[in-house]
Amino acid sequence: MRKGSLLPPRAGREDRFKEACGVVGIYGHPEAANLAYLGLYALQHRGQESAGIVSCNGEGLLVHRGMGLVADVFTEEVLRKMAGPSAIGHVRYSTSGASLLRNAQPFVVGYRGGGLALAHNGNLVNAHLLRRELEARGALFQSTMDTEVIVHLVASAPGPSLMDRLVQALARVKGSYSLVVLTERALLAARDPQGFRPLVLGKRGDAYVIASETCALDLIEAETIREVEPGEVLQVDHRGLTGFKAFKGPRRQCIFELIYFARPDSIIFGRNVYQTRKALGRELAREQPVDADMVIPLPDSGVPAAIGYAQESGIPFEMGMIRNHYVGRTFIEPEQSIRHFGVKVKLNPAKDFFRGKRVVVVDDSIVRGTTSRKILNMLRQAGAKEIHQRISSPPTVGPCFYGIDTPTREELIAFSYSVEQIRDFIGADSLGYLSVEGMRRAVKEEDREFCTACFTNEYPVEVPEERPVRQLALFQEM
Amino acid sequence: MRKGSLLPPRAGREDRFKEACGVVGIYGHPEAANLAYLGLYALQHRGQESAGIVSCNGEGLLVHRGMGLVADVFTEEVLRKMAGPSAIGHVRYSTSGASLLRNAQPFVVGYRGGGLALAHNGNLVNAHLLRRELEARGALFQSTMDTEVIVHLVASAPGPSLMDRLVQALARVKGSYSLVVLTERALLAARDPQGFRPLVLGKRGDAYVIASETCALDLIEAETIREVEPGEVLQVDHRGLTGFKAFKGPRRQCIFELIYFARPDSIIFGRNVYQTRKALGRELAREQPVDADMVIPLPDSGVPAAIGYAQESGIPFEMGMIRNHYVGRTFIEPEQSIRHFGVKVKLNPAKDFFRGKRVVVVDDSIVRGTTSRKILNMLRQAGAKEIHQRISSPPTVGPCFYGIDTPTREELIAFSYSVEQIRDFIGADSLGYLSVEGMRRAVKEEDREFCTACFTNEYPVEVPEERPVRQLALFQEM
Amino acid sequence: MRKGSLLPPRAGREDRFKEACGVVGIYGHPEAANLAYLGLYALQHRGQESAGIVSCNGEGLLVHRGMGLVADVFTEEVLRKMAGPSAIGHVRYSTSGASLLRNAQPFVVGYRGGGLALAHNGNLVNAHLLRRELEARGALFQSTMDTEVIVHLVASAPGPSLMDRLVQALARVKGSYSLVVLTERALLAARDPQGFRPLVLGKRGDAYVIASETCALDLIEAETIREVEPGEVLQVDHRGLTGFKAFKGPRRQCIFELIYFARPDSIIFGRNVYQTRKALGRELAREQPVDADMVIPLPDSGVPAAIGYAQESGIPFEMGMIRNHYVGRTFIEPEQSIRHFGVKVKLNPAKDFFRGKRVVVVDDSIVRGTTSRKILNMLRQAGAKEIHQRISSPPTVGPCFYGIDTPTREELIAFSYSVEQIRDFIGADSLGYLSVEGMRRAVKEEDREFCTACFTNEYPVEVPEERPVRQLALFQEM
Amino acid sequence: MRKGSLLPPRAGREDRFKEACGVVGIYGHPEAANLAYLGLYALQHRGQESAGIVSCNGEGLLVHRGMGLVADVFTEEVLRKMAGPSAIGHVRYSTSGASLLRNAQPFVVGYRGGGLALAHNGNLVNAHLLRRELEARGALFQSTMDTEVIVHLVASAPGPSLMDRLVQALARVKGSYSLVVLTERALLAARDPQGFRPLVLGKRGDAYVIASETCALDLIEAETIREVEPGEVLQVDHRGLTGFKAFKGPRRQCIFELIYFARPDSIIFGRNVYQTRKALGRELAREQPVDADMVIPLPDSGVPAAIGYAQESGIPFEMGMIRNHYVGRTFIEPEQSIRHFGVKVKLNPAKDFFRGKRVVVVDDSIVRGTTSRKILNMLRQAGAKEIHQRISSPPTVGPCFYGIDTPTREELIAFSYSVEQIRDFIGADSLGYLSVEGMRRAVKEEDREFCTACFTNEYPVEVPEERPVRQLALFQEM
Repeated sequence: MRKGSLLPPRAGREDRFKEACGVVGIYGHPEAANLAYLGLYALQHRGQESAGIVSCNGEGLLVHRGMGLVADVFTEEVLRKMAGPSAIGHVRYSTSGASLLRNAQPFVVGYRGGGLALAHNGNLVNAHLLRRELEARGALFQSTMDTEVIVHLVASAPGPSLMDRLVQALARVKGSYSLVVLTERALLAARDPQGFRPLVLGKRGDAYVIASETCALDLIEAETIREVEPGEVLQVDHRGLTGFKAFKGPRRQCIFELIYFARPDSIIFGRNVYQTRKALGRELAREQPVDADMVIPLPDSGVPAAIGYAQESGIPFEMGMIRNHYVGRTFIEPEQSIRHFGVKVKLNPAKDFFRGKRVVVVDDSIVRGTTSRKILNMLRQAGAKEIHQRISSPPTVGPCFYGIDTPTREELIAFSYSVEQIRDFIGADSLGYLSVEGMRRAVKEEDREFCTACFTNEYPVEVPEERPVRQLALFQEM
Repeated sequence: MRKGSLLPPRAGREDRFKEACGVVGIYGHPEAANLAYLGLYALQHRGQESAGIVSCNGEGLLVHRGMGLVADVFTEEVLRKMAGPSAIGHVRYSTSGASLLRNAQPFVVGYRGGGLALAHNGNLVNAHLLRRELEARGALFQSTMDTEVIVHLVASAPGPSLMDRLVQALARVKGSYSLVVLTERALLAARDPQGFRPLVLGKRGDAYVIASETCALDLIEAETIREVEPGEVLQVDHRGLTGFKAFKGPRRQCIFELIYFARPDSIIFGRNVYQTRKALGRELAREQPVDADMVIPLPDSGVPAAIGYAQESGIPFEMGMIRNHYVGRTFIEPEQSIRHFGVKVKLNPAKDFFRGKRVVVVDDSIVRGTTSRKILNMLRQAGAKEIHQRISSPPTVGPCFYGIDTPTREELIAFSYSVEQIRDFIGADSLGYLSVEGMRRAVKEEDREFCTACFTNEYPVEVPEERPVRQLALFQEM
Repeated sequence: MRKGSLLPPRAGREDRFKEACGVVGIYGHPEAANLAYLGLYALQHRGQESAGIVSCNGEGLLVHRGMGLVADVFTEEVLRKMAGPSAIGHVRYSTSGASLLRNAQPFVVGYRGGGLALAHNGNLVNAHLLRRELEARGALFQSTMDTEVIVHLVASAPGPSLMDRLVQALARVKGSYSLVVLTERALLAARDPQGFRPLVLGKRGDAYVIASETCALDLIEAETIREVEPGEVLQVDHRGLTGFKAFKGPRRQCIFELIYFARPDSIIFGRNVYQTRKALGRELAREQPVDADMVIPLPDSGVPAAIGYAQESGIPFEMGMIRNHYVGRTFIEPEQSIRHFGVKVKLNPAKDFFRGKRVVVVDDSIVRGTTSRKILNMLRQAGAKEIHQRISSPPTVGPCFYGIDTPTREELIAFSYSVEQIRDFIGADSLGYLSVEGMRRAVKEEDREFCTACFTNEYPVEVPEERPVRQLALFQEM
Repeated sequence: MRKGSLLPPRAGREDRFKEACGVVGIYGHPEAANLAYLGLYALQHRGQESAGIVSCNGEGLLVHRGMGLVADVFTEEVLRKMAGPSAIGHVRYSTSGASLLRNAQPFVVGYRGGGLALAHNGNLVNAHLLRRELEARGALFQSTMDTEVIVHLVASAPGPSLMDRLVQALARVKGSYSLVVLTERALLAARDPQGFRPLVLGKRGDAYVIASETCALDLIEAETIREVEPGEVLQVDHRGLTGFKAFKGPRRQCIFELIYFARPDSIIFGRNVYQTRKALGRELAREQPVDADMVIPLPDSGVPAAIGYAQESGIPFEMGMIRNHYVGRTFIEPEQSIRHFGVKVKLNPAKDFFRGKRVVVVDDSIVRGTTSRKILNMLRQAGAKEIHQRISSPPTVGPCFYGIDTPTREELIAFSYSVEQIRDFIGADSLGYLSVEGMRRAVKEEDREFCTACFTNEYPVEVPEERPVRQLALFQEM
């Protein structure tokens, strides 16, 4: 634990954890690419860097990938050309591999005379070791993604069927994966033995749908059947759905999906996300009570926890920080004197509303603390008399190696500083985190089925020591 | 009043009132164009069709306009080239003149050897008469906007100064205008005698700022001084601020700005918008009570009224309809069988949350009723037992001729149908509107200072009978 | 005449005269816009900066204009939308008005309730005086083009018909114009009394076609009927073709059209361009003979004159300088050390072909001399023993005020320096120009019907002294 | 040989042989990418479909590839970012692999921890066999290009150095290749044992340059040293240039490079291209004389042969068919009635020039005959009394399997029809081809060192029977 007051860190660093990816797969619907598009639209919160769909028209694979949001990458014309009965899709925020079109997914290759496409949410902890081994055997790589390692393992595995080869390939990898595979003949899906990332199975009429979250099934108007089980491998083809539990392992689902990443209208890991977040807020109110005039959320991710806090505490809920809905990725910071509008363009306090008020501000986490500092400063300037920051999760003290983009341990404010130091840095009158136990209660954990490594530094899958922080690009597209 | 049940109207029509425009003007800051950019960013909710800035670098006017959102129209490079001490800006949703780049504002012309730019929020009811008169005198028109009529009147008015000529021009027009004018030497601003549209004056250091709403002043970090008065004309130049009340008329501010259009963090017409909307919700709870398990808003415009309703009624507030934040203007409706995702891509109920519940849904208005019908249907499918729709304004029975884009009277569901018919059409168990008196109480009207024509059909400025519904383009750019 | 050797002028200046514009008009063909597109394609050599078409579909005018080449500005979709029975088109290289989209032609305005479009090839010498007068009367200007002055004069002229008003407007302007006008009802055409610029009339079936050169009629598969006469005004409408000679004046056709600008497959001013250029080459061979091994042209403009020179002299014609056909407007000069590839990317001598040879190089003109200097240097490096430069026109000593983009008089090398000084500067062993008399013989001039001002400084239409060198933009689009 | 008259084949098919590719490589110049850009600019005639450069900045490979012309694919900014001391480049017209960005070259992969880039001009006749073998071993393919096969062979070859592995890989392939390879450490080059495609070595200061033709060395201002020998493999690295003749085989250089493909200012296969084409024209005049008024070329490829014909026959040379220089790839054929402008937009006869004349038209080859038919028809309509078509090569009766894009044998008019039938089809008064012997004389062949398969059906490298006509894409990018 470091001593003394914190200096404001350098500006411009993202002060948020970033989700890795979302995947979707469809088999047996004449407009499979259109459904994949809708599914990705619903999963856009899981990755905004690139989007891609591969469909199959019965003869070959049709591919379209691009940098940017789903709605920008796809046009009506492209979707029309991709008509066919099966498709997979992917939205991405890079955790391994630079953010380049070349690294956009689904990854597609020619393989024994046909095409094979794979879309992957997760992160392998032994990818660099496997890659070195494959390169020594003469394998050529076209990207820096973990995903390509899986495909090489599939291609070089013996075995009569693709499913055999996929199982053999997955037996060699360690880490997290929720993935979908498409060939001219079948759709496959697999989830790692710990079940780090969510993956659900649904049906729309006769068509099978695989997706990261149920909100994608909702938009597709597919019925949710069940989770794909940790360690399970599925195949859908003209004979229907088959599959089996290929790998066993203790269930370790990512608790941060419930706290922040998943969409509140989804059900994942058997939990209703919206109600789980309200429960986190209620626990927080019990553990960290305070006398105040209003509870406000940081819109929009803190809303359910703030409602839970307000309902438990009886303090009125308000939405006094107004969000500008037109903030896009492309906001240009004017140069020179009038800088650092980062937070201000997104949020503005309702004028004259906070004057003289005691305010509880509920958020889901603090990463570097820079955003909280700015927002609390805005509230203070708007006249708030007291500001009580409440966080609906414990202090984040460890990075994620299983598919979330996090800063290094040293950059996590709660790893290096005490709660009191953080309170001072962000400028709150009081600061309260939810306890690990409170969090476990709120998510109704019964049997340690969650990965809480970022709060507890207990990593369920061992991370090789020599792991490179971030792999360099083999070559760089200009 | 028509009889019988309503059939669902044809799909694809916008079921919202549309704001016309937002304006901003800066004088005396070295980064005037950058400040105008920020101001437009904050006013983006007032118009998303086109955006434009004209700045002055001391020698001549620099113009940039484009179709789309502020953040898409402007790049760092463009803003850098527009450096100079004064600027005006405009965001637009067309109410007169087709939606073409040619009709993007500010409108700029060469005039007696110099340049003149004008940005206008409002709608003239006698523009077509004035235009015909000007054309007969040999005037050439390059657009179909009302704004160009004002500029021609200014150019042909006698008088020693631009301000004289502007006052003479405005003396001839009828309707609504909140406008800013820029020349190489000065910034001017004017507001119509009724004060239909908001317009405020602020200062940032020595620089004067004019803007449609205070939220723009907030983002620019300018201090709010006061409203520009109805009928007032202002000029800022190297000698400072001058101005006077050029026109007298009964104040008739647009009440719908408070109900829906203005941003909740703004203060307009001397009212705090967020608190006014909560007050509308409180009045609504008193007038239209119901026994229920929760109050939910239609995100995001209904949020403050729903909070007011919840606080007054004691029924818990929830945010159970989840908004997809990545919905852009470019969503492609997949063709063929899986159509009509309009509302579904934007909103999805939290899974399993509404099952068996009695829900109060608060919204600010019903236009055609088609959106409410879809949303209530989604809630019903999500298992809601009872659905009580509450509207924080009276039934909308008249179109707007003063700057809001509304459907024709016949398309307004409340003009043709009774509350009971509407309730049946949208599929609610009960439907309750706020009364005109309740609305007046909530906005604290004292002296009939609001235009309520869309609720009462009492039009404060006479509309010529032969007014063309929508003017044809003179020529069409491909 | 200056003394001493010339220093190489600063690089990067265009070393060519530039044509101003080309125009085309169609009346009475169901695919008028398509024909206009083809006509502009054939006239592309007359202007590469912007292109535009206005068509009429019977109801209103349809406009499309853009910066760049005809083939880049128009797409199939745009042309399809512009279907209708009449159209005018324009290609432009700016001689007055900055090179901006705003200055692209045809110029279109709303005028007495309808649309009016005008496309103009030429240059008015009194435009600035007329403009000042119009502005004083309250006229608003949207561009800096001379063309807009004509349109204002038309709009403010009295008279029962558009043709009356056009004639009154043209009575006030001085300078050169070959123009076409389109309204919902008619196509008009006019040519200035001196006939500076070419304009021809053709028919394709029942449709009338107006174009700058016959090569446009050829591509449209229209039959050439005759020239539009100097001073003539024509109108085509549903009653057919009418017209009359509105203005009288001595014929003064631009001789440089024959020497360089017009396409060699055209007939203009009653002369076959290809054969006229061969005749210029034959005269040159007679006036400026030399003993040599081969005659080569500067491709491609010097080809016909070089063939004429070769045939007259009996020296073999060769094409030893090879043109790279893929040179576009967008060649990027690599930075830093390897600069100044301007001429080299376009032309390269056939390897080992010139070694030890005596070469006659035929070109049509020398403007600044910089290009000739570079090319002769390339030939010298390729081993040529003797280089004899021959020019198929007299020394250019005066700028053009009638529609050609020329440097100022001071920048014309032949205005300031002797033939011997120029020979030294370009690095030739000998240099010979055609005489004015030889030129007149070659073009078969009988009655001083050509403007030769750039060779003789005799200007047939007086140029007002206070003429601004180049008008500033009123405002600048970013 | 078929009987009877030919019907005009269906429109829109390209009636030209297409060159495959051009390559360039630079080692040891600080602006290697800039030089590669210039080199590709000079080689643009060898491929207009896509262009790419890979440079090395000492740390890794930098890649930029795109569809279109060199000048459109590269911007100043891209080239600036690619700064570094070595680079290779490629222009492509596809002969194997669909025309997709994915198939643009140089081909780049990750290989044993580094990057490897390869640019290839040529065509392998056993690629499909090698590919099947590699796939069975688990190799993944990302493109359908022969080039990728070579790279896989290199990656899986044993051997201590890249050069060893390249030689082993090339020992397995059959067909044509002139290729360059770039890694972080070295530039390699290789040419197949027959030397089908040209490849030359040059120096600019201390930097080595490899290019398809000398015209690229000229533009780079590099000195031509010598040809890369057939069967030779070269390496340039920090120790300088090394290499050796790795493969022996009878020299079989593509004679069509001299007749049509190479730029006339190049020297390839030890021959001056311009003078070789003139020699072909002189032989043609001797073998196929005719009494006529003028000789005209089909611009621009037929120009040198036409000059040779004119000089040998004494008939005057003319350039009466005028080329429109602004014809780009994007010409839109107007729809409906006014179609089939293909040739007309490119060429137009000088008006009134051919009336009553006897014309010899010289071209280099006839493929399908459709273009000749159109051009001769234009001449006939322009009034030509007699038209004598002369071809500066023998009838083309066989497709190319060594790197030229040709139609199938059945589509070659001279395979199926007699000279008399072709003459009748194209509408000539007489038609004369050069004989195979005349062609051999003109190119000064001494020892059967040329491949003449397309004229003689004698294929120097055996083509496997089961060769697929055109490989399908593994997957298709939308």
